[in-house]
Amino acid sequence: MASLKRSALAPKTFPKVSAIAGVALKTARAGIKSPGRDDLLLVTLDRATTVAGVFTRSATASAPVQWSRKVAASGKARAILINSGNANTFTGAQGVTDVRSTAGMASRAAGCRPSDVLIASTGVIGEPLPVNRIQNALSRMSSSRRTASWLDAARAIGTTDTYPKGATRRTFIGDTEVSLCGIAKGSGMIAPDMATMLAFIFTDAKLPAPVLRALLKEGIRTSFNCITVDSDTSTSDTVLLAATGQAANRSPQSVSTPQLKAFRVAIKELLTDLAIQVVRDGEGASKFITVDVNGAASSAEARKAALAIANSPLVKTAIAGEDANWGRIIMAVGKSGARLFQHRLAISIGGITITDRGERVPSYDEDEVTTHLKGTDISIVVDLGVGRSRSRVWTCDLTHDYIRINADYRT
Amino acid sequence: MASLKRSALAPKTFPKVSAIAGVALKTARAGIKSPGRDDLLLVTLDRATTVAGVFTRSATASAPVQWSRKVAASGKARAILINSGNANTFTGAQGVTDVRSTAGMASRAAGCRPSDVLIASTGVIGEPLPVNRIQNALSRMSSSRRTASWLDAARAIGTTDTYPKGATRRTFIGDTEVSLCGIAKGSGMIAPDMATMLAFIFTDAKLPAPVLRALLKEGIRTSFNCITVDSDTSTSDTVLLAATGQAANRSPQSVSTPQLKAFRVAIKELLTDLAIQVVRDGEGASKFITVDVNGAASSAEARKAALAIANSPLVKTAIAGEDANWGRIIMAVGKSGARLFQHRLAISIGGITITDRGERVPSYDEDEVTTHLKGTDISIVVDLGVGRSRSRVWTCDLTHDYIRINADYRT
Repeated sequence: MASLKRSALAPKTFPKVSAIAGVALKTARAGIKSPGRDDLLLVTLDRATTVAGVFTRSATASAPVQWSRKVAASGKARAILINSGNANTFTGAQGVTDVRSTAGMASRAAGCRPSDVLIASTGVIGEPLPVNRIQNALSRMSSSRRTASWLDAARAIGTTDTYPKGATRRTFIGDTEVSLCGIAKGSGMIAPDMATMLAFIFTDAKLPAPVLRALLKEGIRTSFNCITVDSDTSTSDTVLLAATGQAANRSPQSVSTPQLKAFRVAIKELLTDLAIQVVRDGEGASKFITVDVNGAASSAEARKAALAIANSPLVKTAIAGEDANWGRIIMAVGKSGARLFQHRLAISIGGITITDRGERVPSYDEDEVTTHLKGTDISIVVDLGVGRSRSRVWTCDLTHDYIRINADYRT
Repeated sequence: MASLKRSALAPKTFPKVSAIAGVALKTARAGIKSPGRDDLLLVTLDRATTVAGVFTRSATASAPVQWSRKVAASGKARAILINSGNANTFTGAQGVTDVRSTAGMASRAAGCRPSDVLIASTGVIGEPLPVNRIQNALSRMSSSRRTASWLDAARAIGTTDTYPKGATRRTFIGDTEVSLCGIAKGSGMIAPDMATMLAFIFTDAKLPAPVLRALLKEGIRTSFNCITVDSDTSTSDTVLLAATGQAANRSPQSVSTPQLKAFRVAIKELLTDLAIQVVRDGEGASKFITVDVNGAASSAEARKAALAIANSPLVKTAIAGEDANWGRIIMAVGKSGARLFQHRLAISIGGITITDRGERVPSYDEDEVTTHLKGTDISIVVDLGVGRSRSRVWTCDLTHDYIRINADYRT
């Protein structure tokens, strides 16, 4: 495929991510993706590492997702093998065999058991995984001492991504300083359903697996589960959180313990940071859109209305065209199924009130909204006028470049 | 807005629709839509006319929908007033007043009571209806004897439509020959939810309102409720069926009476014909796509899976690009929520089997599928491998022209 221009919404630079004790990275060019680009990442983890994972709820989940779900359920892992360029999805019995054999290869490279290896694959669906190429690349990795940086790692897992995605935080558990970092990929086939795309989060903190699981679940709910690029849910969605236990913190027994307060905030921030980076690299995106729905009967209904706006091709094309066509927002909340009182429905764009009590406000000046729409960061706020629940969702616009990218992805 | 090129999927000609006894048509240029085009249609109906209607389920349904729902429920009507260019949606108390006053004006033109007038409006959302222009146009209509043809009528109700949509059938009720005809509009904001867009069907048959209602409900289920252009449900969706009672048939007391057998087939055919014409004029469409889902646990699940395929931007862009990227169909059924057995999942495109029993078939030749995709009429058939229920949905591809049309609809 043609190489893609860096998204206009990309952050200026990749963050300075320091090493996480107990995590080692190696990347290689296995030749799965287009030539000349790393497409394999092997993460080895200290023996003490606990893990948690969330995965796509797709009924056609990939073979690696089905494998990793089991490994993550054990709460322990020693390695993560990630390849880009091939999703190993809908590959039948061969796909299952291929996951098992690549886990075997990675376990030899990492010095652990195959059942301690998490696997994630992303790329084309329905093509057999080129296992031999992965084998060869792993052999080269084993014989080389070259370790990879977080930037290398973020690049190796990307497909149609136009920039590498990373984030880092330092925080405290009790009195002990701990580190958090993460990388993510994804720019199309992005719609939240439990987890979206690939993201890998690491910390040197000491955290038992059940606490890790609770932290991840809580963090995902308001981050990766609140983004959508194109309403299409991937078959490979995976978010993994690994804690190497190298920090000197006292191991907390519950997620609600006061000593975890700062850590919970930090992990939510980090997950949100990564999720927003994924949306800002949405295929063809020229505008980043934050949709807030307030005044809903429940948070589930608020989310339903927010997603109806965020997934509406008519809303997304209007914003791409910098057109203050707010009638399409009326349409989207109307079809969403969320309860609303039309005579109380309020809409604002860029902080400018457009409608209130079911009608356009008399003082409404379209030019002000148009000016806001000429920027890159767009805000839509809707009040359904029913209750007190709210939800926030992030998305991007729908542009010619989305069509261009997706009408010739495989060619 | 820029004038649009006639869809490549358009039928060669508008059908020859003969007059329906008891129906008179008049069109006018009220100046609501772009200048130089008719944008007002007044249909007057014989005193004996019975009616049935189905309407959008949107929570932000337009003022005309709310008005016409009540009129249709009475089972009787003497006139239908349709304007294009302004949807009279989300116009608050003023919108309700405006419907009432236009119904009053139309009733004077048609010589009936306001409560006998059905109203339908389509176009921009949130702008006040230019009632004075409608008043002036109706006055001109009243003083002129010029009646309009079905082609004129179909043109007057269009907005971004690139061709007028009409269909006609002749059939029998018992031994009496009766006529059916219909016109429709719609090319964007098309997703089935009870009814989709504007369509008006007329027959000279004698049919009591409850029978008419049952016929329409039955016919809609497999026609207008099975199409989608862009997953966005209009706030104005209206399908009206009027029977003028001018034919000499014996009035049937129930929809299941044997004498109605041929008529039921004819009305289903006519509704399907019109619904398909709407999809073939889908905004920017270059391919017409028929999606069949078989082997589902229920027809509701079959429909869910078929709509997930038909609404997936990734599937639609792949077809626009003539790219045999069937992995996206796997993704779409996976996210749909319909039960499926992955090890039995079968997909074919253009009659060419791609996958069977959860894997690509060994003999699969992508070139054959690519050849099919170069045509304009695309067929996708999926078997979920669970049960015996099925559903068929029609859609179109997602192209640059969809973006072009919708990024500057109002400008």
